[in-house]
Amino acid sequence: MPRDGSATRERILETAERLVIDNGFAATSVDRVIAESHSSKGSFFHHFASKNDLARALVERYAAADVAHLHAALEHARAATDDPAKRVVAFLSYFENDADAIMSAQSSCLYVSILTERDLVLDGTSGQIEEAVVAWRDGFAELLRAALPGRTPAGVDIDVDALSDHVFVTFEGAFLLCRSTGDSGHMHRQLTVLRHLMEALLGAVAATPPRRRRAGTPSRH
Amino acid sequence: MPRDGSATRERILETAERLVIDNGFAATSVDRVIAESHSSKGSFFHHFASKNDLARALVERYAAADVAHLHAALEHARAATDDPAKRVVAFLSYFENDADAIMSAQSSCLYVSILTERDLVLDGTSGQIEEAVVAWRDGFAELLRAALPGRTPAGVDIDVDALSDHVFVTFEGAFLLCRSTGDSGHMHRQLTVLRHLMEALLGAVAATPPRRRRAGTPSRH
Repeated sequence: MPRDGSATRERILETAERLVIDNGFAATSVDRVIAESHSSKGSFFHHFASKNDLARALVERYAAADVAHLHAALEHARAATDDPAKRVVAFLSYFENDADAIMSAQSSCLYVSILTERDLVLDGTSGQIEEAVVAWRDGFAELLRAALPGRTPAGVDIDVDALSDHVFVTFEGAFLLCRSTGDSGHMHRQLTVLRHLMEALLGAVAATPPRRRRAGTPSRH
Repeated sequence: MPRDGSATRERILETAERLVIDNGFAATSVDRVIAESHSSKGSFFHHFASKNDLARALVERYAAADVAHLHAALEHARAATDDPAKRVVAFLSYFENDADAIMSAQSSCLYVSILTERDLVLDGTSGQIEEAVVAWRDGFAELLRAALPGRTPAGVDIDVDALSDHVFVTFEGAFLLCRSTGDSGHMHRQLTVLRHLMEALLGAVAATPPRRRRAGTPSRH
């Protein structure tokens, strides 16, 4: 353990992330975070000035992992094929393959817990969620713009940014579907639906089905 | 005001629904609900045995309105046309037309606030959310099953229940997209994206664009 206490800070953040994802931010007391991370009041307040300071640190850490996940998927899609439509499908398949691992690693999404409390949004705690949303929008929209010309059905004027945002929307909505039904298999099914819908839009239905890529328990929104 | 106090109960529920949607359940104190509904502790606990009893009553009332909204959309779609694919589009257009009114009436969705707290899910408070989810799944899946045969692109095996669930997923995800960006226009844009994707899947892109239907501020998930 480094002498600067960074391991303690990390242990507090890991524990708090799990508790806040499970049960929300307001319902998670600092005392419980301290107890479950085997920390102390002194240590907690050495690392975090307040409970809201903890929230900001949680969002910063989670959003950084989320954007890293985006970049990994973009790199995977670009390396997989030169065909623009197949790149879109490869990008979506990447998350489809990760779905069950994501749901094993976390019971829902930190973003849901933070965004539920408008006071946290209004005081700027959620700022880095919006930055992550924009990174996802811009990153996937670039793949979509390369794939869409000449491929959309005649007469349909597609809002590419909104179409790109639909990945975030599907993830967040699917987390809530899983929670409401107690069936975490919905994440995978919703990501498959998203791929089928995008394939239909792109006329790329002949693309190969997703192949197994790697093990691990990646975390994302 | 009826002498049985039902108007007071309704006023408490309306106030609590707004507060819980705005800021979450744990962050909403009974004292604040009492103060903002111009009620009293005695009156509150006459109508609700506990704060969790209030949560159950909020979910029951909200889910009933949500399922009523579903049935209104199904009736609208069946009355609009006999063509199965156009019925699917009419169903989705119904919510697209309502999007801005929904976002004027509420800042997010009660379901998000309740589902964020797993303790509420585990103690059964959210049971009627799952019933509403199943009603939406079954109701829209019936329209989808009538429209899909012979219309899906060759070789794609569509999970109709999951495709139907994608309406719930889009609503819930779009509420979170609106909250994270501070732009309530995302609800309308996401429902338009959903319609475009479904039209592409159904090959029904030549369907007429949605028409203005009615005013009002309907509430749904």
